[in-house]
Order: sequence, then C-alpha cells, then structure tokens
Amino acid sequence: MLEQVKYYEDYEIGEGRETVGRTITETDFVVHAGHSGDFFPHHLDEEFCKTLPFGKRIAHGTMVFTIGVGLTATIINPVAFSYGYDRMRFITPVFIGDTIRSKVEIIGKEVMEKRPGYGRVSERLTVLKHSGETALVADHIYMVEMKS
Amino acid sequence: MLEQVKYYEDYEIGEGRETVGRTITETDFVVHAGHSGDFFPHHLDEEFCKTLPFGKRIAHGTMVFTIGVGLTATIINPVAFSYGYDRMRFITPVFIGDTIRSKVEIIGKEVMEKRPGYGRVSERLTVLKHSGETALVADHIYMVEMKS
Amino acid sequence: MLEQVKYYEDYEIGEGRETVGRTITETDFVVHAGHSGDFFPHHLDEEFCKTLPFGKRIAHGTMVFTIGVGLTATIINPVAFSYGYDRMRFITPVFIGDTIRSKVEIIGKEVMEKRPGYGRVSERLTVLKHSGETALVADHIYMVEMKS
Amino acid sequence: MLEQVKYYEDYEIGEGRETVGRTITETDFVVHAGHSGDFFPHHLDEEFCKTLPFGKRIAHGTMVFTIGVGLTATIINPVAFSYGYDRMRFITPVFIGDTIRSKVEIIGKEVMEKRPGYGRVSERLTVLKHSGETALVADHIYMVEMKS
Amino acid sequence: MLEQVKYYEDYEIGEGRETVGRTITETDFVVHAGHSGDFFPHHLDEEFCKTLPFGKRIAHGTMVFTIGVGLTATIINPVAFSYGYDRMRFITPVFIGDTIRSKVEIIGKEVMEKRPGYGRVSERLTVLKHSGETALVADHIYMVEMKS
Amino acid sequence: MLEQVKYYEDYEIGEGRETVGRTITETDFVVHAGHSGDFFPHHLDEEFCKTLPFGKRIAHGTMVFTIGVGLTATIINPVAFSYGYDRMRFITPVFIGDTIRSKVEIIGKEVMEKRPGYGRVSERLTVLKHSGETALVADHIYMVEMKS
Repeated sequence: MLEQVKYYEDYEIGEGRETVGRTITETDFVVHAGHSGDFFPHHLDEEFCKTLPFGKRIAHGTMVFTIGVGLTATIINPVAFSYGYDRMRFITPVFIGDTIRSKVEIIGKEVMEKRPGYGRVSERLTVLKHSGETALVADHIYMVEMKS
Repeated sequence: MLEQVKYYEDYEIGEGRETVGRTITETDFVVHAGHSGDFFPHHLDEEFCKTLPFGKRIAHGTMVFTIGVGLTATIINPVAFSYGYDRMRFITPVFIGDTIRSKVEIIGKEVMEKRPGYGRVSERLTVLKHSGETALVADHIYMVEMKS
Repeated sequence: MLEQVKYYEDYEIGEGRETVGRTITETDFVVHAGHSGDFFPHHLDEEFCKTLPFGKRIAHGTMVFTIGVGLTATIINPVAFSYGYDRMRFITPVFIGDTIRSKVEIIGKEVMEKRPGYGRVSERLTVLKHSGETALVADHIYMVEMKS
Repeated sequence: MLEQVKYYEDYEIGEGRETVGRTITETDFVVHAGHSGDFFPHHLDEEFCKTLPFGKRIAHGTMVFTIGVGLTATIINPVAFSYGYDRMRFITPVFIGDTIRSKVEIIGKEVMEKRPGYGRVSERLTVLKHSGETALVADHIYMVEMKS
Repeated sequence: MLEQVKYYEDYEIGEGRETVGRTITETDFVVHAGHSGDFFPHHLDEEFCKTLPFGKRIAHGTMVFTIGVGLTATIINPVAFSYGYDRMRFITPVFIGDTIRSKVEIIGKEVMEKRPGYGRVSERLTVLKHSGETALVADHIYMVEMKS
Repeated sequence: MLEQVKYYEDYEIGEGRETVGRTITETDFVVHAGHSGDFFPHHLDEEFCKTLPFGKRIAHGTMVFTIGVGLTATIINPVAFSYGYDRMRFITPVFIGDTIRSKVEIIGKEVMEKRPGYGRVSERLTVLKHSGETALVADHIYMVEMKS
C-alpha cells in the first residue's frame, strides 16, 4: 500500500489505472453468503440454478462490488474521502471461475460550492471479466481537499 | 427464506419493512478486509485511527452496504431481478460494536417502455444504527415482471 | 427472518415445511474443520479417502447437523425454546457437491407436568440429499409456552 | 492426531478422558452464523439480547455441540464408526468469553444382534464451562468391530 | 491433543514422527490470502498463472509453512519453547489439490552455555507432497528444560 | 499492488521500506488456529493462559510470520523469486490488540556461481509492535535475475 497525497487540482479527467486480476472462486461465494447473511439459492444451490436461464450459480451483486472495489485499494490518499456511489449497474453475471479485474477512470470534477476548500471528483469503476465482458459499473464520488 | 411471487402491479409506493438487527463486530471488519482485499489502516489499524478525527476503526463502506443488503435477503421474488443501485451515500460511519438494521421502502415505479412486460421499481434501502443515526442509504432498482 | 408467535396449542401434529437447498462445497468442509478443530483425514485428506469404502471425503456429522438446522432458521418464535435433540442418526454420508435441504414436521406434543404453563413439542428434522436419500434425521425438542 | 485401533472388547464402562480447553470468542459466534446460515438475533444482536433474560448473546446450540465434539477429535479409531447421538440437551447457555472443555466417558456397550461382528458403544459427551457448569450433554453412539 | 513432558535429556537424534495428510484446497488459498493480506496474482489469478512456467496457481510459501507446522501440533511439551526456524527452503510448489503431510526428525541438540538449565534441540520439518516430492524444509529450534 | 521490475544490480545494501500497520485481533487468532489446525491452548484458552508467565493468549509464531510477510506484499517484482528464509526468531510474543508493522531492509547480495545470470539477495524482515518492541526477525532470500 502506498500513501500518495493528491489534491483536487491534481485530478485530471481521463486519467486512470487498471488492477491485477483475481479469480472468483466457489470459496468467495460461500464466504460472501456467510458474511452478508444472504443464502439465496441463486448463489448457493447448484441444482436450483440448473433450472434458471444462466444454468449455474451467480455471484452476489454485493460481492462483485466489494471485490471490485477491493482490487483498487492499493493507494491511500489522505486528503480524499469516499462519499458514495452513483449508477451502480450489474451488467453481466459473474460465475465461479471467472477472473475479474477493475479499471478506474476519472470522469468528472467540480468545486463544491457548499463546502469551501473541497472539490467533488467522480471516478468510474468498471469491473471486467477475463472474457472482456463488463460485470459491473459504478461511479465513485470522492470529496477531495483543494490545495488552496 | 420465503418465496413470494409479487408482480409489478402488486408494488405500492410507501410500503416497506424493517429487518432484525445485527451487531457489527471486530470479526466482521477482519473478515471483510480478507474477503475484499482492502486492508487500509482506516479499517484495521487501531493505533493509526487514534490519530484521525473519529478516533477508532471505521467499517468499510462496502461492508455496510453488503451486510445492510444481506439483512433484507429473506424473501425471494422469482419475478423480480436486481438491476443496480442509485445514489448510495455513506452518511455516518459504523464502528465496532454498533448494531445495525435495515429498512426498505418502495419509493417509485414506472413501466419500462423499452422492455415490454416489465416495470422498474425503486426501493430505498436505509441502514440504521441502534443510536438512530443513518449509516447508509441507497436506492435499489429492480426490474419486475408485469402480470399481463 | 420473520417473527411469528406460536403457542403450544397452535402446533398440530403432521404440519411441516421444507427449506430451500444449499450445495455443500469443499469450502464448507474446510471451514467446518477450522471451526470445530476436527481435522480427521476422513474429511480433509482426499488421498487417504481413496483407500476407504466411500472413496472420497465425507462431511463431518456435526456439519450436516449444523447446516441442516441452519437451513430451517427463518422464523423466530419468541415463545419457544430449544431444549435439545433426540435420536440423531447419520444415515447416508454427504459428499462435496451434494445439495441438501431440510424438512421439518411436528411429530409429537405433550403438556409438561413439571413445568406448568409449558408444553413439549417434538419436531422431526430430516436432511435430504438432492438424490432423494436421507442424510440425517433428528428430533428437535422445544419447550413452548401455553396460551393459558 | 493419533491412530489407535480399539475393538469392542477393549472398551470398558467408566473409562474416559478430558480435553484441553478453548475460549469461545465473538469470532466463533460470527463464524458459526455464517457457516450455518442462522443469523437469529439471539446470537448476533447485542441490543436485542439486552432485552432478554440472559442479557447477552447466546451461543448457537449447534456450535456448542460442534466445538464440544471437535475438542475430542484427537484419536482416530479405524474400527469405530459414528452412528449418531441420543439425548442431546442444552443445559446452560454459553456466552462470549466462556472457556469450555469436553469430557467423554463410556457409559454402555452391547453386542449388535442384527450386525454380527459389531458392538454398539455409548459414550457420554459432557461440555463443561470453566465455571464448572455443564453446557451440553449428549450420548454418542458408535458401532465398533469385534476382535473375533 | 496430548500433553507429554519431555526434557532435554529425553530427546534422541534420529527420532521422529509423521503426521496425517491434508489436501490443500482452493479454499485454503483464498483463506490464506485473506488472512495474510497477500493477494499476489501468483496465488489468486488463474488466468495470469497460465502465462507462467508452472501454469497454475501456486500456494503462498507462508501457507505451506503454516499448514506444515500445524499438522505437527498434536503433542504439547510444557518444558519446550519455540525459539525460531533456520534454513527454511521452498523446494517444490504446492498446487490446489495436492495432499501434504509433515515429517519431523530430531537432527541436533546441545547444552546452552548462556542459559543454564536449558538445552537447544533442532528438529527438521519436512513437508511432503503425496507425489513424494518435498515441498518445504525448515529446522525448528526449541529451547528445552533439562532434568537436573 | 504495483509491478516493478528490479534486477539484481538494482538492489542496494541498506535500502528498505516500512509498511502500514495492522492491529492483531482475537479474530486473527481464531482464524489462524482454524487455518493451521493448531489449537494449542497457549493460543486459544484464556483460562489456561492465566496460569502461564505471560498471563494471556499468545499469537502463533506462524501467524506473526504470515501477517508480517503479508504486510510487505505490495510490490511485485517479476524477476525475483522467493527462495526461503534464514534465522527466523520469535523475539517478543504478540498479544490480542497489539498493532504490528513490518520493516524490510536489504542486508546482503552475492552473485550465484552455480546459477549463471542470477544473484542472491537477502532482505531482513523485522516485525515491530506498536510499543517499539521487535516481535519477529527473519532473513528472506531471493533469487534475482541479473541485467546481463
């Protein structure tokens, strides 16, 4: 993990990075069920899933989001604060054995009128499957200190 | 877990329910770090956190979301499909020992022009702390089959 | 999870319900070993198990019981208290990849002479494999408040 | 772990052993909920539990049984097979921070008429709290090969 | 677990024992990543690993060591204290599905001049794969009380 | 996680870095026991530990090593291969609630005669407690490609 001070002024629209990959395992499905308390058969009952259109167990949306965000957690910016997420969409389901990685890109910034000294930065998170398909998108909103 | 078929027409704005509670433990913090891969010291380093405004470890936003959603996972509606979330906001941090519960309320519905036979339903998720403070809000978007 | 007050008088012999299913994974085997501390090679050593009659790893009896009971934990009855279990029997082993579900049925009830105001209710738990075979049976004994 | 061949004839009524201890932690509560899928507030919601007679979170019965049995899993007898349990009773609740250990004692044996070459051995399992109170008892039934 | 008092004088060079086996699962890989915080793609990204010489995910060295040592943890000697390890070497990688067991052998002992009443005992740990290959070796150093 | 190609010639004796911190929790103790299979009462039985000199539960040596190494796992060097560890020593025990961080420093390098094109680099790992005490030291040996 690296610490990197980055002020509102330092963010540029279009800049981004891509993470390493992680194979989503049956273990992740079971751990996520046990952690969230969501034991829906869509995620845990292979026989039931054979009767559904996808034909196999589907990752929890909250897991794709959690691991997708987790993959990006490598640089600490002490002057940025997570505010929330907009327009999170589940595009393609993630199955056991899929390898995912995350891409983030700055897509917007604006000075916060109501909060002097801070700007609002939007970062698009895209969780990609190894096949090239997009699993999830969401726009992360940060509140970032201004230099002056 | 109960299965309950509920069509687009059956949803009424203003209807809702509230879940049982769950105390968020140090274990949940450690499990979430290990599951997500996010080991930021804000969540795991008690000594570092003593130097921050809140003074103690703060739950991952993705965990409050995951457990908040998980608490609601008690009724399966086979004709509804999760589409995504809008306007997720982290309002108050969750600390070790806080007990949370979730409230959901239908806040909007509209027929989907582009997708005949389906309607879009918005359900506001509010994760509440035992103190009465709101930890997180987010609007869950479902695609729901219409009766006819 | 639902709360449902149900007094001794409300229980009827023969009534029952069946749960959703859950596929038992290698993860569950490893988690149960780590949780219980039982690392017997019958559960964890695939090579050793090839030399045994069943030819593969066998689920811990305590796990089939734990998950079988857990599957039924969807309705809270605030006037019923778990007392214990009678005649728990391991009928067919559970293997990695088996999907199980639980069936419960009220099989007996009697007023408790020694404990005025309470009745004793017996509920037969049957854990079924997707193949139709029975994995485990046990009779759950509850102490339930009487209406009057 | 030790392997020790012990035939039906080698078991003597009254013989027994006692295990090392293990402190039951909040982690065990959370792990057991996630493993079993039983998220009842009696085990996980500290605020709710303050309104109940015991005033604090109570261990799952299935967990006391699982860990109580797990503590005894140190000697493999290749000629004995677990058959089931009789008269499992939850005597005193286990709380976070209690240290438990298990005691086992042979309390019965009889030749199996229907299964030539095998005897049935009953072993009483007692899970004790550090306070000296009994948390759980159950009679473990084994099917054991006879020497001749 | 057994307790067995064994003084410095009781150790003989060449004596040893071998443990039961344990199949290393994908679950162990995921659990170890989450526990250690080491999410290197060498351990968790199946697609990335296909581009490396071994062609599949490789166990963390710290996991082979941890489980290899854990397999030997069956006898408590209250007069011996772990001091450290020398010459730990990763010989052959461990893959998902490999079954490992540990062998320990006393390879050296000497009276501790600086610490009257104690001797130093070296025990060679060898973690073996079911194929017969050696996965890891390390020399465990104990400080053991002398009888007189 | 960053990828950073660093050849044998690029390593300089004395260079180093320090990681973020991580508070070692009771959860880590329980997870490590379950992962390793080492349930010695020195790590898990609070009552037993009250009778020992340290008076409380002591972290597994393998856990301090695993987490200490894990903290450093932030930069991937694709031309370096882990070879093993020398002189691992447990200096001060780690207790529940201690916050640790790791320091690494290059302490030696030499061309490998037997392996043309590779050099051997030694990196001293020091796991420090928040109190300033050293918990563990070990010398990590890498095999690193040479530029030419």
